[in-house]
Amino acid sequence: MDYRLNDTICAVSTAAGVGGIAVIRVSGGEAVSIADKLFCPMGKGTSLQARKPNTLAYGEICDEAGEVIDQVVVSLFRAPHSFTGEDTVEISCHGSLYIRQRIVELLIRSGCRGAGPGEFTRRAFANGKLDLSQAEAVADLIASTSEATHRLAMNQMRGGFSRELADLRTQLLEFVSLVELELDFSEEEVEFADRARLTTLAHHIAAVITRLADTFQRGNAIKNGIPTIIVGETNAGKSTLLNRLLHDERALVSDVHGTTRDTVEDTINLQGVTFRFIDTAGIRDTADTVENMGIDRTFAKLSQADIVLWTIDGTQPVPHMEALAHKLIPLCTGKHLIVIVNKTDLLDDSRLTAIHDSLTALGISPHSIMNISARNDTDIAPLENRIATLANADDTGSDVIVTNARHYEALIRAQKSIERACEGLACNYPGDLLSQDIRETMHHLGEITGEITTDEILGNIFKNFCIGK
Amino acid sequence: MDYRLNDTICAVSTAAGVGGIAVIRVSGGEAVSIADKLFCPMGKGTSLQARKPNTLAYGEICDEAGEVIDQVVVSLFRAPHSFTGEDTVEISCHGSLYIRQRIVELLIRSGCRGAGPGEFTRRAFANGKLDLSQAEAVADLIASTSEATHRLAMNQMRGGFSRELADLRTQLLEFVSLVELELDFSEEEVEFADRARLTTLAHHIAAVITRLADTFQRGNAIKNGIPTIIVGETNAGKSTLLNRLLHDERALVSDVHGTTRDTVEDTINLQGVTFRFIDTAGIRDTADTVENMGIDRTFAKLSQADIVLWTIDGTQPVPHMEALAHKLIPLCTGKHLIVIVNKTDLLDDSRLTAIHDSLTALGISPHSIMNISARNDTDIAPLENRIATLANADDTGSDVIVTNARHYEALIRAQKSIERACEGLACNYPGDLLSQDIRETMHHLGEITGEITTDEILGNIFKNFCIGK
Repeated sequence: MDYRLNDTICAVSTAAGVGGIAVIRVSGGEAVSIADKLFCPMGKGTSLQARKPNTLAYGEICDEAGEVIDQVVVSLFRAPHSFTGEDTVEISCHGSLYIRQRIVELLIRSGCRGAGPGEFTRRAFANGKLDLSQAEAVADLIASTSEATHRLAMNQMRGGFSRELADLRTQLLEFVSLVELELDFSEEEVEFADRARLTTLAHHIAAVITRLADTFQRGNAIKNGIPTIIVGETNAGKSTLLNRLLHDERALVSDVHGTTRDTVEDTINLQGVTFRFIDTAGIRDTADTVENMGIDRTFAKLSQADIVLWTIDGTQPVPHMEALAHKLIPLCTGKHLIVIVNKTDLLDDSRLTAIHDSLTALGISPHSIMNISARNDTDIAPLENRIATLANADDTGSDVIVTNARHYEALIRAQKSIERACEGLACNYPGDLLSQDIRETMHHLGEITGEITTDEILGNIFKNFCIGK
Repeated sequence: MDYRLNDTICAVSTAAGVGGIAVIRVSGGEAVSIADKLFCPMGKGTSLQARKPNTLAYGEICDEAGEVIDQVVVSLFRAPHSFTGEDTVEISCHGSLYIRQRIVELLIRSGCRGAGPGEFTRRAFANGKLDLSQAEAVADLIASTSEATHRLAMNQMRGGFSRELADLRTQLLEFVSLVELELDFSEEEVEFADRARLTTLAHHIAAVITRLADTFQRGNAIKNGIPTIIVGETNAGKSTLLNRLLHDERALVSDVHGTTRDTVEDTINLQGVTFRFIDTAGIRDTADTVENMGIDRTFAKLSQADIVLWTIDGTQPVPHMEALAHKLIPLCTGKHLIVIVNKTDLLDDSRLTAIHDSLTALGISPHSIMNISARNDTDIAPLENRIATLANADDTGSDVIVTNARHYEALIRAQKSIERACEGLACNYPGDLLSQDIRETMHHLGEITGEITTDEILGNIFKNFCIGK
C-alpha cells in the first residue's frame, strides 16, 4: 500500500449499500481547506475554516461546475482532538451510492488521496491516539457479534491490555537499568541490583506473562465460538437438536454470516457467548462394530471440542449406549460432557430412570444428564442454560484476555526470554547476558503495544481493516 | 404503522452491514434527555443538555449496569434547526452490528420508540421542513444511480417542482377568490373577475400542467432507464453487442443491482444516463417466413422502446435485410432507430457500401447507420456516443421533470379540472361551477406538495422509505 502520513486522505466510513445517510471521512493537514472548496454553507453560515472545532455545519456540496451534489451536515474536528489526531472533516450525506462516489471523486480531484484499509486507525496509532493493541481492538470491536467478544474488544480498546503490559515493561526497565548500571562499574564488581529481589520480580513477571498467554485459548474460543461437538448414533436426533438450538439464534448472528462470509460453520449465541458447532458424521451400528469408521472420525474431531453434547436415542437398548460410552468417556477428559437423553416423548418414567441409573453407573454426574425431546421442542431451554453455564464456568474472571494470535506469539517469545532470565539469575550468569534476555522480553512486549514495530507488522495488521476505518 | 408525532424515535440511519462507523439518529422532544441517560462525556465534557446546539460531543455510551457499549461522537441539533425540525441527536458509533443493536435496544429501553420506514422524513414534512414532493425526492435521491436521476431528484428536493406548483396555486387562488367574491354579490350580477383575463390565465395554467404531465414519460424513462431494444436475426451478434455495452458499465451500477435487487433487466449507464434493455428473442429465418412467431413477439415489444438498435449481420444477403426492414421501419415511427452493421471484420469496403446504399434507399438516414465489430470490440465507443446523444436530444431543457407516478396522476386530474374550467369560461357557465373546477384543480396540485393530504397517502409514500431516513 502507498502509505504516507503527510497527505490528506478520504473514504466512505459507513457500511456499503444503500442507507438513509452515509459518512465520508477526510483526515489530514488539508482536510478543512479541501472540504471548504466543495462546501457551500446554507443561510448565514461561514466557511469551515472560520468555524470552531467540534461543531456541525449545514450546507451543500457542489462540484467544480457549481452543480449541487447533495445537502450535507459537516462535522469539524481540529488536531489533535479527533480520532486520527489530525484535522478531520466528516461529511454526512444522503446514503445513495451515486452521491457517495461523486463526493469521494470530488475530494480526490480537490487534493485528497483515497484512504487504504484501516488508514485512519493507522494514523491514530502513528499520532499516539491509540497504542497498537488498542488499534487492533478497533477491528475486533467492529467484527464483534456477541456480548463476550464485544466486551473483550472494548476492554482492549479502552487500554486494559495495554496497561498491564506497560506495567510489566516499567518493572522490567527498572530491573534492567540496575543490571546495566552494574556493567558500567564492572571492574569494581558492585551489585546494584539485589539478586534475590530480582529473582522474585522475574518470576512474578514470568507468571504474569504465562497467565496472559494462557488466556489465549479461552480468548480464541470466545472470539471464534466455543468449539462444541454433538456426537451420537445416526438416529439419535443430532440434526434435530442442532436445528432446535439454531432456531433460538439471534437474527443478528445470521446477518453477520451473510455479511462477513468468514465461516460456513454453524454458530449460536447463548446468553452472550458464541458456540461453534463442529460437524460430525453420525455413528452407526455401534453395538455390533464399535470400531467402525464413523466413530473413529468423530472421535478424532472430539479433540477440537471444549464441549461434548452426547445425544442418546432413549428408545434404543441400554447396552448400545454402554458400548459407546466406554469409548467416548475417556476421550472427554478435560472437556465438558453433557449427556442428552432424547425422545422423552416416547419414554416412560421407568425407562428414563433405567437410562439415568446406567449412565451414573458409568461415572457420569447426574448434573450432566439432560432429558429433551428435540422433535417436540421440549426442555431445550434448560439445555441451553446448562451449555451457557459451562462457558461461564470457564471464565477466568480476568478482564484481560488475549484474543489476538499476534499478541499470543509475542507473549510466547517474551515468556521464553524471561524464563531464560530466571535461569540466568538462578545460575548467577553475568549481567550482560541477563540484560540481553530482559531487553528481549521488553522488545516482545513492546511489539504488542506498538512501542516496537516495523512497517511489515503494521502493514499486516491494517490490511485486514475495512476502508474508511 | 403506529405513527405518532409526539414521542421520540430512534433508528440506525446508515446502511446495513459492517462498516467503520454507523450513525444512530434520535429525534423528538426527549431526544437529548434520553441520550443523556446513556452518554458519559469524556474528559471535562458536560451533559448533552448543557451543550450548545450544532456541536459534537465525545464520550461513551454505557448501559444501565454501567458497562461501556462504545466510544462515540454525538451530534446535537436543537429544534427547529434539524432535519426533522425536532431536537435531534445523532450517535456516531463503531459500525459493528452488535453495537448498533445494543445502542438501539438501550435507547428503546430508555424511552424511545423504534422508528418506522421514512419516519424521520415524515416528521420533517409534518414540521414544515420539506413539502411532500421534496420528501419524496429524498427517497429518489437515495435510490438514484446515475447523473440524470440524481439531478432530477436533487432539483425536486431543492424545491424546483414545488415552486412551480406553488406559483400555479397562487394564481389559481387569486382567480377563484374573485369568482367567489362575485358569488357573495350574486344578486347584484357584478363581475369582479375579468373573464377575458381569466380565460387567458386558465389556458396558461392548463398549458403548464400539460407541459409538466408531458415530462412524465421522459422522467420515468430517466428514472427507470430509457427503454432500449436490440432487434435482429439470431446470428446478427445481438448478445455479443449487449455484452460489449454492459462491459463498459460502471462498477457502481452493478453494485446497485446487487444491493437493491429491484431489477433483473440489464441496464447500462452511458454519459450519465441509464438505458434499460428490453429482452427479445432473436428473429430467425426472416427471408423465408417473415411472419414467424419470433418476429411478431419482438415487434410487439418494440412498442415499449424509445430506442431501437437494429443489428444486421453484414455477411448475410441484402434481400434478407430488406425483407425485415419493410416490417421493422414502419414500427419505429416516433422512436430512435439506429441500424448497426455488425461483423465489419468480415466485410470489405464494397460490401459495406452496398449495405449502406440499400439502407439509405429504404429511407434510413446515413447518420443512423453505424458500423461495428462486436466480436473484435471495434467501434463500440462511437455507437455508445450515438446512443447517449439520442437520449440527450430528448432533453426538454426543463429542470422540472415529473418522475413520480403519484404526481403524474394528480397532474392528470388537475389537467381535467382546469380544462373543464376553460370550457366553463368559454360557455359562460355560472361562477359556482367555475369555482368548483378551479378548487378541484388546486386540490390536485395541493396533493403533490402535500398541502392537501391524507394519512393513507402519507402511509403509502413513506412505507417505501428505508428505516432510519
